[in-house]
This record gives sequence, structure tokens and C-alpha cells, in this order.
Amino acid sequence: MKIAIVQFNPIVGDMAGNARRIVEIAEEASARGADLAIFPELCIVGYSHHDLLDNDYVISSIEIAIKWIHERVPSGMALVVGTVRRNPSRLGKKLFNSAAFLQADRPAQYVDKMLLPTYDLYDEYRYFEPAKSQTPITFKGLKLGIHICEDMWNLEKYASYLLYERNPLSELIEKGAQLLINLSASPFSHGRHRLRTELIQDICAQHHLPFVMSNQVGANTEMIFDGDSRVHAANGDLICLAPSFEETVLYWDTFDHRPCPVPTHDRIQDLFDALVCGIREYDKKSGVFNHLLIGLSGGIDSAVTAALAVEAVGPLRVSGITMPSEYSSEGSVSDSQLLAQNLGISFHTIPIQPAVASFKDMLAPLFVGTTDGLAEENIQARTRGLALMAVSNKFGHLVLTTGNKSEMAMGYATLYGDMAGGLGVLSDVFKIDVYLLAEYINHRAGRPVIPISTIQKPPSAELRPDQLDQDSLPPYPILDEILRLYIEERLDFHAICDQLGHSEAFVRDILSAVDRNEFKRKQAAPGLRVSKKAFGTGRRMPIVMKYDRESLELLKLELSVEANA
Amino acid sequence: MKIAIVQFNPIVGDMAGNARRIVEIAEEASARGADLAIFPELCIVGYSHHDLLDNDYVISSIEIAIKWIHERVPSGMALVVGTVRRNPSRLGKKLFNSAAFLQADRPAQYVDKMLLPTYDLYDEYRYFEPAKSQTPITFKGLKLGIHICEDMWNLEKYASYLLYERNPLSELIEKGAQLLINLSASPFSHGRHRLRTELIQDICAQHHLPFVMSNQVGANTEMIFDGDSRVHAANGDLICLAPSFEETVLYWDTFDHRPCPVPTHDRIQDLFDALVCGIREYDKKSGVFNHLLIGLSGGIDSAVTAALAVEAVGPLRVSGITMPSEYSSEGSVSDSQLLAQNLGISFHTIPIQPAVASFKDMLAPLFVGTTDGLAEENIQARTRGLALMAVSNKFGHLVLTTGNKSEMAMGYATLYGDMAGGLGVLSDVFKIDVYLLAEYINHRAGRPVIPISTIQKPPSAELRPDQLDQDSLPPYPILDEILRLYIEERLDFHAICDQLGHSEAFVRDILSAVDRNEFKRKQAAPGLRVSKKAFGTGRRMPIVMKYDRESLELLKLELSVEANA
Repeated sequence: MKIAIVQFNPIVGDMAGNARRIVEIAEEASARGADLAIFPELCIVGYSHHDLLDNDYVISSIEIAIKWIHERVPSGMALVVGTVRRNPSRLGKKLFNSAAFLQADRPAQYVDKMLLPTYDLYDEYRYFEPAKSQTPITFKGLKLGIHICEDMWNLEKYASYLLYERNPLSELIEKGAQLLINLSASPFSHGRHRLRTELIQDICAQHHLPFVMSNQVGANTEMIFDGDSRVHAANGDLICLAPSFEETVLYWDTFDHRPCPVPTHDRIQDLFDALVCGIREYDKKSGVFNHLLIGLSGGIDSAVTAALAVEAVGPLRVSGITMPSEYSSEGSVSDSQLLAQNLGISFHTIPIQPAVASFKDMLAPLFVGTTDGLAEENIQARTRGLALMAVSNKFGHLVLTTGNKSEMAMGYATLYGDMAGGLGVLSDVFKIDVYLLAEYINHRAGRPVIPISTIQKPPSAELRPDQLDQDSLPPYPILDEILRLYIEERLDFHAICDQLGHSEAFVRDILSAVDRNEFKRKQAAPGLRVSKKAFGTGRRMPIVMKYDRESLELLKLELSVEANA
Repeated sequence: MKIAIVQFNPIVGDMAGNARRIVEIAEEASARGADLAIFPELCIVGYSHHDLLDNDYVISSIEIAIKWIHERVPSGMALVVGTVRRNPSRLGKKLFNSAAFLQADRPAQYVDKMLLPTYDLYDEYRYFEPAKSQTPITFKGLKLGIHICEDMWNLEKYASYLLYERNPLSELIEKGAQLLINLSASPFSHGRHRLRTELIQDICAQHHLPFVMSNQVGANTEMIFDGDSRVHAANGDLICLAPSFEETVLYWDTFDHRPCPVPTHDRIQDLFDALVCGIREYDKKSGVFNHLLIGLSGGIDSAVTAALAVEAVGPLRVSGITMPSEYSSEGSVSDSQLLAQNLGISFHTIPIQPAVASFKDMLAPLFVGTTDGLAEENIQARTRGLALMAVSNKFGHLVLTTGNKSEMAMGYATLYGDMAGGLGVLSDVFKIDVYLLAEYINHRAGRPVIPISTIQKPPSAELRPDQLDQDSLPPYPILDEILRLYIEERLDFHAICDQLGHSEAFVRDILSAVDRNEFKRKQAAPGLRVSKKAFGTGRRMPIVMKYDRESLELLKLELSVEANA
């Protein structure tokens, strides 16, 4: 049997457009002799659909799209398409997350998802009822063990505890499945590719069956999908693998068991590719921007953002603006100009001093007797934000924000200032990785596209004389590791001190700064997710709270004194 | 038995502080002769804790707080306290949402929640494993049917379909429960009070048992809790009721069956009280602001916001600033001034023309040859936002944003301009209700606190000459009803047209505007929730999407043509 594994890039909510493209791809696969074409999880509505599924018209539209596709299944062929199915029972959630099995002139068959991820970015219990069972579907003599995404992620080795009581794969295999087929909408994060390979090889070792995965590709707002669709032989060997971050169709004949090379993955190269994909897709799917616009400070964050933007949409659709103030160093303009020249993007300079001075004059009656401080620093940052947004509004540009994960964590950014924009490119990238990205970009180009002086200068917000990040923040290599353990590994100060050997007060102050700045991140632009725990939809923290570790330690102390009394 | 029903106002994340206050209240209840004190759901960590529960140190702290409280339970008394409990199984989520039953010198007993709401603002499946069963706890000869919030919300009458397969109350009663005790963290929304009364009366009619509910009160960021804690007799009569929006303790002797009056609720009065509570609690629990600051435009939204702020924190802690531009009407300053005088708040005028002119000069080289439009309008709005934020930064003020739900829905607001601020007071209040609030405020004061001219003038953003809202938006009475059906009732254009009789194109354009402006709402300040579906945590929509109703109708047409062919 010849199988087309479709690594598909849907537009969220575009049920009609996605359906038309599914049929086009199916027809092409049929022309190339495929018996079966497999499309990813929820590919008619696109992942993540969020609360679109609370809307009955959306559900009806998905049903219509499935019928419309069903009418067009090429003769002799079957399609497996990720969709929703209404729960016929009055008990439970209204929908199932389903795979429709469609053949011409036969009724549609459905397999519903059993394991519903409800953590991090995933809210599947919000919409779906978990299926009670799954049954293989027989096609051309082969029993297909169709299942959906999380249904395969239930091996003890891959979780600190088992999230689910049941193992859908074992149930399918008990019912005679001969080929395992997984429809996924599984996003990219660091190391995800290797984890998928290990997991599927473990499944193959346990069940001795070949395994096919069709994954969504592209990006939708903050979620980036690398694709990584593949076929493993019954012995676990990788035999087909789709290129990452590209819509593509893999063709596999079930008689073919020849292994293909397992590519190695470089973390920074993956990061680069993922961010480029995220920018490109945001731009393309929004469909309303003619240009990407970046405020260039001469620093490394805006330089790396600009280089990524150029890779995503080409230099002719990227502009940089530098907005020097009285505190800007000589290099902030010259390095920005050099960067723009290296990248081949258009470049403008808007000195902001006149507007800053106007604000100071306007506010002088209220500010009389006060000394310059945070308010004045923020006026500069916000004047820049305002100027960028004015250019954006005037010409239909998308402003990219440049704040990295270290800054966003610590609130070392100005709301409505440098945080103004539509998409946060680096907000899930720690500062030390921004440096590695810069090196990678220059290495890849074979020349210092990002000026060496930009890489070598000490980081500064340049909002007051001689200001350096290191006056307000610990050195980034130390800070980033603490932040990573807190945000991504979800450890708290005791465990972090144990691992890294810092003092409790030092770590506690950093974690408190992270907590305290949730109000800023609430109003941040959506940011591209590349780690296993990014700020945004996947990390939901209270804004008004009093998470006071010192008072908790005191309570603990009182309790232990009592215990010893 | 004498029972203290504690309508408790926790601070989210303040496990130590909440524990200390729980013990203080228990001691007071003991002094007043109570045998049993009942505290609300999750009252040690506070609702909504969000992803604090992903942090093991937080879990340990909650456990320590429970032990600390347990050590301090007054002799002869029992406390029921909403908390979390670790799931001892390696299968399933790590935690239960639990009620701890605490007596001095006896081990703690736990009842775990069975029904976990996972919709709207609620993410309980994200954290909790549903309990398989519940058993009554016997205390002083009485079998207490303790259960948690959603566990009681499973009657067919109250949902279009049954969300859950099991009915915890029936199971408790089968096991001999003689008194039903519900621990809640059930937020306010319009009509919620009446719904609770009806539900509990239906439960009493079915089971002939008295019913006690202890609910959280206060507000945490966007969620407002009215409390509404109560006791119903076995025949359904209301016998004790806590005042709304206030921390309080109800004392009830189980021999007392005398009915109390059922208060009537006025929708606009409730709305007023809820918003005042939301502002007061945000201010108090943040604990970092010395003043509330509002940009006064002379219009009704900012006037109502200012009046609510004064009610919340008193006139001495509220300031208004009016920021006229060349397009501001005479009334924008004079009406603002009159309002400030009526409210007794401090008032400043900052004309923004100098900064606006600076921006125009700064941008002139880039904008050469273009005509004035949205970019120039937004420069004005953002100049105001910048000035307000400068004052906020300088003096430690909290800026309240004033955009109403109609504007927020349509994107009729400027990001980083009038949307700049820490808390959206009216973002869940449609424009027609803002008018009703204004009338209520004046009626309540017995004088026109909000100037009549502010109420009577046609709404305008005053960003260009003679601009009126009605140039860009349909009349509010028509718009608001369409928006309500779309956002709160989750109907789409066919159903809305059927109900209201508008043309499909007219409704479709409005709904598309709502969809298209999700990117603005993503970056809005958190807003106080008063309806059953507010923008914010409870409504999660994709930002980049293409939800195109016309293309869907075309697909539907093609399908029906085929069906008829």
C-alpha cells in the first residue's frame, strides 16, 4: 500500500480554505498512486483553534467541510483527516477530537482521541470528551491503528508520573492493528525531535509494528510546528522523515523497510529555523502587513530580530528605525546603520529628543520638585514606541518587539515602550542564546552581518548616562540559569539554591521580580514559543497576588518549633 | 450545633497570611460558641491561583499552612478548609481540589472534589484529578455532606447538556449525609445570585436536607466574588444570607429554621457594587499604588470610571487628568473639571499639543506626501497614554483604563493610547449599561455628580474634527445587542440575524471586526469580569486566523448544489 503522509500547514479558522487545499493535495497524491493520505490532527480548523470551538457555526462549518471533502475523495483512495465530531450523548462535553476516515461512496468512519492534554498550551478538556475506546479501521486488507497525538505519549519513561490511566496504543493492538498511524498537532520546542524518535522507537520495540506520524507544520501566532512527520519500521528504524518547518508530502510504500539517515539537530540552528518560521507564518497568515518594522538600538536583541525577519520575508520587506536620544551612545546609530546595510534593509533615523523635551515641558508643572528617574527613562522608551507605532499605522507595517526572555522575566522592559508591537520574536529566548544566535547568523552568512561591536558591547538600555544592564541585573549567564530552572523546570528557591549554590536571598529576589512583573507580560505582544515553557498561553500566572516566600519560611519555622517542643 | 459560615477574602498566593487570618477567624468563632467553621474552596492559596499550583514549593507551603492551622484548631471545634491534597497514585494529575476537615488531636480528614469545571475562566482539569467518590464526615453525631463548588451544579435544568456523568450530591445522600455543605469559589456575574437560590432550592426539594454554602468574597484581578454565602432549610427556605461583596461570618444554629427575607437584586446596583469591589480589591491587594489615576475626556466612560474609583478608595486617593488637543471640544475640559469638582478629586490639565506637534515634526521626513489619518489620530491617543503613564511612574499611581465592552469588542480604542493602564474597569460593560450606571450614580448621590452634558453629548473619541462614534459604529443599542448575542450567548450571524432581523452582511461585518481585533485585546489591561463571558482569561481566541464566513457560505452552497444534483 502506498501512503501519503501530509505535513500540512492549516490557517486557523479557515475551514473552507483548508478543505480546498486538503482536496488539492489528495488529488495530487492520488495522481502519484497513493492509496491512503493522512492529514494531521484538527487540520480543518487548525491548531490551536482555542474558543472558536465554542461557536456552533464553527462546528457546523467543520462538518460541512468534512462532507465537502468526502464528496471529493479520489476513487479507490482513503483520506484520514483530523476534525471534530459531535458527542451524541447528552452527558459529557459536546465534541470529540476525531480522525475522519473517508472513502468515496462509503459512510465516513471516525476514531476519537482518548487522551486529552490539559496543561501548558493545551486546553483540550475545555472542548472535548475523551473517547472510551478506539478500534482499528480495515482498509485494503490492512488494519490501521489510527489514533491522535497525545494517545501515543503515555509511556512511564516520558513523564514524571502517568497522566492517564489508559494506554490507547495497547488497546488498538489488542484489537489487531497492524500499522500505527498518529495524527498530531505537536509543536516545536528544544529537543522535541529527539524525544519523538525515542518515544516511537520505544513503541516499536514494545509492539513490533511500523509507525506513521503526520504532524501539523508552520506556525499559528505563538505556536510553532516543526512537522517532523515520519515513518518508522516495525524494528524502530526511521525510514522516512519530512524536512522540518516546511509543508510537504512524504510517500511511503508499506513494503519499503530501508532505513534513512537520522539527522543530527543543532540546538541553535533549530532555534533559528523555528523563529524564522514563526515570523514568516505570522506575517503570511495575518495577511495585512506589507512590511516588518524593527526599532534598532545598536544592541544585540534588535540586531538578531532584524536578521531573523530578513530571513523570514526577505530584505525588501524589512525596515529598521533607529531613534537616538541624548543618552544614546555613538554606536547605537552607527551599529544600527551598519546592520541595516549588511542586511540590505531600508533604514531611517528619527531623533526623539524633540518629543522627549515636549513631554518634559508638558509635565513640568506636575513634576516640579521631583528628581529624574524611572518616569523620565520610560518617557524615552515610550516615545520610541509611539514613533514606531505611528510608522506602523501610517504604512501598514508589523512592529516586531525585541525583548528577550531574560528581560521579559525580570520586567526589564517598558510597557508601551520597547514592548510595543505585534509579535515578540525573542521573548522565549534567554539572553545567552541571543548571543549564540548572533554567532550562528554571522557564521551562516560567512561574514559579520551582525556587527562585532554590537556583539561585544556590554548590554545597555541607554535610558540614562552610562547605564548598563549589569547595574540592575545579575550577569546573564547566572541569571539565565536561575530563570530557566524557575520558569522551565518549575523549581523554587530551595531547589535552585541546592543546584546552583547561590544564597537564598539572592535567588528569592530574582524569583520575586519574575512574579511581580506578571502585569507587564499580560500586556506583552504574543511571543514565539521555542522552549517547553514560554511566557504566554502556556504559563498562566495570577497578576494580583502576594506570593511571599519569606512569610512562608516563617510559618514553616513556627511549625517545626512546635514539632520539636 | 452552631456553625460559622465564613465568607472569606483570601489574597492569592499568600498562604501564610491567609492561614493566619483563618486561625484568627476560627478563634473568634470559637469564642462565639461555634462548633464548626466552614471556609471556602481553595482558600489557603486563593482563587484563582492559576499556575502557582505547578510549583512544588507552593504545594508544600499549602500543606504546611494546613498543618499550622490544624495545630491551632480551638479545642472541641472543627474547621472545614478548602485546600489541595496530593494524589497518592502515580496515575492521574498530581493534586486533588480538597476540603480538609480539621479537629484538634485527631488526624485531618479530606473530601476531594469530583466535578472539575474546565470552561470559561476555569482550568481545573489543568491541575486536579477528579475524585472517584465522596463520603460524609460525622461530627458531633451529624453526618456532614461536604462537597466543593461545581459538585452541586449538575442538574439538567441548569445546563443545555449535562457536563458530568455523575452526581456527587446523590452519592453523599445515599451514604447518609444529613446536612449538605458546599465550599465555593464562585464568582459574580449578572443574575448569579438568583441562579444559586433556584439551584439550591431545587436540591432541597429533591433531597429534603438543609444546605450551607460558604463562598469566597472579594476580587482577584479580573474575577469578582460577591460571596452570597447562605443557609437554606430542608424545605428550601433561605434562612441566613451574607451581605454581598463583604468579608463576613454567618452564624447559624442547626435548630433554627426561621426564614429570612430574600433580597431583590437590581442589575445596575449589582454591577455598580461589583465594579467598586473589583477596583478596591485590585488596589488593596496590589499594595503598591498610592493613588488611582484616570484620564478624563469629558465623556461618559471616564466619568463613570472616576465615580466608581471614588466609591472604591475615596476621593483623596483619586486624580483626574484632562489632556485636551486641538480637536477637543470646549466641553471636554469643562465637563471634566466639573466632574472632578463634583467628586472632590484632584484634577490637572495637560494640553498635549506640544508633544503631538513634536511627533509630527519628527515624523515629517517619513510621512512626506501622506494625508492625515489613523496614524495621526493614534499619535494623539498615545501621547495621552504616555503622559498618564509618566505621572503613574513618577508618583506610584495606578492608571485605570476606561474602554467599555462595546469599544473593546470593535477595537474602537488605541493600543498604548487610551488602552494604557493597569486595570480595565468597564471592559465587560456594554455602552448602554455605562449610561445606566451613570444614571444610577447620579440617582444614588441625589445630584448630577456626572454632569448632564457628559450624559447627553453624543459619544466621540475627539481625535479628528467633528468625529462621532456613530460615524464608525452602528448605534449602540443595536450594536450592543449583536455583540451580546455573539460574545455572551455565543451565537453566530445566522442565529443573530434570525433573532434581530438585521441583514447578514451587516451582522457579519460586526462579527468580523470583533474577530479581527483580538490582537488589541491580547495587550489590554486585565478587565473586571461582570458578565458570563468577558474578554480576558475566560475567552481565549486565536489572534492570527482567517475565520471567513463568506467563504464558508460558499462551501455550503457548493455542497447543497451537489446534494440536489
